[in-house]
Amino acid sequence: MIAKITAKSQVEQLLDQHDTWLFDCDGVLWHGSELLPHALETIELLQKRGKKLIFVTNNSTKSRATYRLKFAKLGFDVSVDDIFCSAYSAAVYLDKVINYPKDKKVLVVGEQGIEDELSALGYSSVMGSDPKFRQDYSEELSATVRRDLEVGCVLAGLDTHINYYKLAYAQAQLEDPETLFLATNIDSTYPSHGRLFPGAGTVIQAVATASRRQPSASLGKPSDTMMDCIKARFEFDPKRAIMVGDRLNTDMAFGRRGGLSTLLVLTGVDTEAAIADSDVKPDFFASKLGDLYELLD
Amino acid sequence: MIAKITAKSQVEQLLDQHDTWLFDCDGVLWHGSELLPHALETIELLQKRGKKLIFVTNNSTKSRATYRLKFAKLGFDVSVDDIFCSAYSAAVYLDKVINYPKDKKVLVVGEQGIEDELSALGYSSVMGSDPKFRQDYSEELSATVRRDLEVGCVLAGLDTHINYYKLAYAQAQLEDPETLFLATNIDSTYPSHGRLFPGAGTVIQAVATASRRQPSASLGKPSDTMMDCIKARFEFDPKRAIMVGDRLNTDMAFGRRGGLSTLLVLTGVDTEAAIADSDVKPDFFASKLGDLYELLD
Repeated sequence: MIAKITAKSQVEQLLDQHDTWLFDCDGVLWHGSELLPHALETIELLQKRGKKLIFVTNNSTKSRATYRLKFAKLGFDVSVDDIFCSAYSAAVYLDKVINYPKDKKVLVVGEQGIEDELSALGYSSVMGSDPKFRQDYSEELSATVRRDLEVGCVLAGLDTHINYYKLAYAQAQLEDPETLFLATNIDSTYPSHGRLFPGAGTVIQAVATASRRQPSASLGKPSDTMMDCIKARFEFDPKRAIMVGDRLNTDMAFGRRGGLSTLLVLTGVDTEAAIADSDVKPDFFASKLGDLYELLD
Repeated sequence: MIAKITAKSQVEQLLDQHDTWLFDCDGVLWHGSELLPHALETIELLQKRGKKLIFVTNNSTKSRATYRLKFAKLGFDVSVDDIFCSAYSAAVYLDKVINYPKDKKVLVVGEQGIEDELSALGYSSVMGSDPKFRQDYSEELSATVRRDLEVGCVLAGLDTHINYYKLAYAQAQLEDPETLFLATNIDSTYPSHGRLFPGAGTVIQAVATASRRQPSASLGKPSDTMMDCIKARFEFDPKRAIMVGDRLNTDMAFGRRGGLSTLLVLTGVDTEAAIADSDVKPDFFASKLGDLYELLD
């Protein structure tokens, strides 16, 4: 039975039962640069009630530090330590889980956020936001595509400056079967400007098709690596924690796999109709996060 | 039993048994702008022997007329009518198979070849090679992405100028479930400069991931539509025809499905080892097309 949150008593019960609240951001707190109605007030209400809040985003274009500035700009009082992004999770995976050597470089198909998180853990990257790779394709340019022997890993995520040259470069690198192929996250879309835009999965599937390989790991939600990262930093009882998000196949799956309660909000990707069609069901759903504030108010 | 062509008698037998020869081009006749050894001489030999030659390419970046110029530049004497490209096949499919209305536009994720073939059959297209869409992504630009109500079909193929803006545009168009989604061809890679580059499939899988839809038809090899196109123009007995190509999953599958003999050459995508791993087996294989000329000489 999936309960829709429509009454004050339900909100009180949610608050009583959960000390730790994990939040997805895009489509839950905001759309692009636009705050969602009463999302800020709901977060402030939870903070006032002494809840531990953790923000878990598959957005890899920004580092945690840059992401914190976005929170601040929209009025949220959130610390860098409480933000987990897929770029950070990917860097931690390389460093702690597979002990990827620091003298090997990472070829990034993605943006600044990935480069920053890799650099913070002592890794050098190539491509990424380097303007040298933001070139329109030409025969001359394509003749320069070759494998960089210092690179041992291709890490792909959302790249809004994706082009043919970068795809060819990543493909050349992955021709070497020893080269690792990792993805920050697999979301096919993300919400912005009131509609859906191509997500990291779009870029990753382009690289995967060209290289005829699939990433050996995807480090964002719903991966266990992201959850392990969070659990390693904060001790919390999953039974008294809840994951709030707008996507069934990432946020809700992530919460469930981690043993948390789950709350779907309908301000992002998935609709109420999508719940019926999905294998992954949330415990609760609400029209928007702001309903929690409005119902209590 | 798959016979490797290594003796003059085998070549004579191939010539005796086949009147109609279908050829893939990239990886068989040339690599990019480089002629493969004795490929030209082999084609001339077949022409002298009175064979009917048909060139079947999944390359959608050039129209048949432009492709003919490529043949001429490399020394081949070939007529436009003997060239079949996936862009042409796609235009014929819209016109003859599904009677796509001429007052509806086609949104092209691809290059000039597709636009030219559509235009030749009376269709208007948008995006494609239009410089307006060759823009680097920005927040301002993404706010302009919207569905064009005059468009009823997205046709995707290789686009070496692919970018995020175009992907977002195609995605917006495909949000409408009534909008058709077609692919020129699904090759994941193509050979050039002595290595593999991202093929049409790379672009198509990016669009497919962003739109969470798959093309309803792919009009290049190995699709039956391409074969139907060829058979409608030339009457030939498939039992006395042979398909020559460098790919098992497109060329060889295409020949087999059409009831033709098949000859794989190892100058392109697939290797001898790949034959063993593949469900699709050719009847014959040769190190290169030029072996036919060399063995007879």
